[in-house]
Amino acid sequence: MKQLTLSTASRNEYVDITAQVRAAVKEAHIEEGLCVIYCPHTTAAITVNENADPSVFRDIREHLGALVPEGKNYAHAEGNADAHIKSALFGCAQPVPVTKGALALGTWQGIFFCEFDGPRKRNVYVQCIKQ
Amino acid sequence: MKQLTLSTASRNEYVDITAQVRAAVKEAHIEEGLCVIYCPHTTAAITVNENADPSVFRDIREHLGALVPEGKNYAHAEGNADAHIKSALFGCAQPVPVTKGALALGTWQGIFFCEFDGPRKRNVYVQCIKQ
Amino acid sequence: MKQLTLSTASRNEYVDITAQVRAAVKEAHIEEGLCVIYCPHTTAAITVNENADPSVFRDIREHLGALVPEGKNYAHAEGNADAHIKSALFGCAQPVPVTKGALALGTWQGIFFCEFDGPRKRNVYVQCIKQ
Repeated sequence: MKQLTLSTASRNEYVDITAQVRAAVKEAHIEEGLCVIYCPHTTAAITVNENADPSVFRDIREHLGALVPEGKNYAHAEGNADAHIKSALFGCAQPVPVTKGALALGTWQGIFFCEFDGPRKRNVYVQCIKQ
Repeated sequence: MKQLTLSTASRNEYVDITAQVRAAVKEAHIEEGLCVIYCPHTTAAITVNENADPSVFRDIREHLGALVPEGKNYAHAEGNADAHIKSALFGCAQPVPVTKGALALGTWQGIFFCEFDGPRKRNVYVQCIKQ
Repeated sequence: MKQLTLSTASRNEYVDITAQVRAAVKEAHIEEGLCVIYCPHTTAAITVNENADPSVFRDIREHLGALVPEGKNYAHAEGNADAHIKSALFGCAQPVPVTKGALALGTWQGIFFCEFDGPRKRNVYVQCIKQ
């Protein structure tokens, strides 16, 4: 299993980690199989979405913030209950098939680390499985 | 990896692809393992839910449309920001265990392609992994 | 594939199944690979989130109930349309990498069965895949 590290700069942030995941898949020397990108944190997530127009993630960030507001009167005393809920909605694991030695991403797809309680130092695990 | 193709007829639509995925699992000749159904598009998703009463997906479509409205003033200029957000909420990959040579779906479960920006021609990847 | 069984006591409930999943991984004797925890029901889900402070899941339960209210005028006649929608939002499958013979969970992460239409008897499948 490969571990990536990254630093986020703001509370809600989407970091494109496609290149690092591609490198981990190359290192794993797998022709056909599966790659699972995993976030070991409870206030962050992994997602796949458009990597071309940054306004897509601006809309995702704004709308997710409207659905799960930061300032609500939550029970959890650490002030990041919204981040836990966002993490559950997006999910901490992203499987992507590997075919012909490469990630089977669509033309417009990138892999993103979703920070919901930054800025922080974060880890991401990449596990590749042979078919 | 097996590729399925399908055509959707409306903007928001849920297409039952269980039979095609079952056929791909049979072709893969796997007794125990995992099947990952993957959508390479950023305005669509894959989900598992009830395949018996069509009113379940009517409710899912209506309620998801209420949570992520189509007409909002989004930044993304292509008019499909809602579809990108829905895709992130539902997820583009669905793992289903394979046991005794077949998908370990529950009695009422079917596998559905979720179209959020149709009508379009779409692809779905099916990758099977041996235990 | 290993099958777990559990009973839920209320309509909306989050049951920590981390210990049972850990035991299934130990039984599978896998050093490096993947574990997929799968819920074969359409009104429940699997998620990973904080296992330390129970107020986190109180907030998740309350907020998810606000986003997808139980009493709305849904088409599905069984009175559990909200549970189907919640299941689609959280997802019925959770992949977690296995490394050095154990689940690669983060410090604060636990694996939870999410009941949205209890009380019921439920099954959970655990499938482990070697790298």
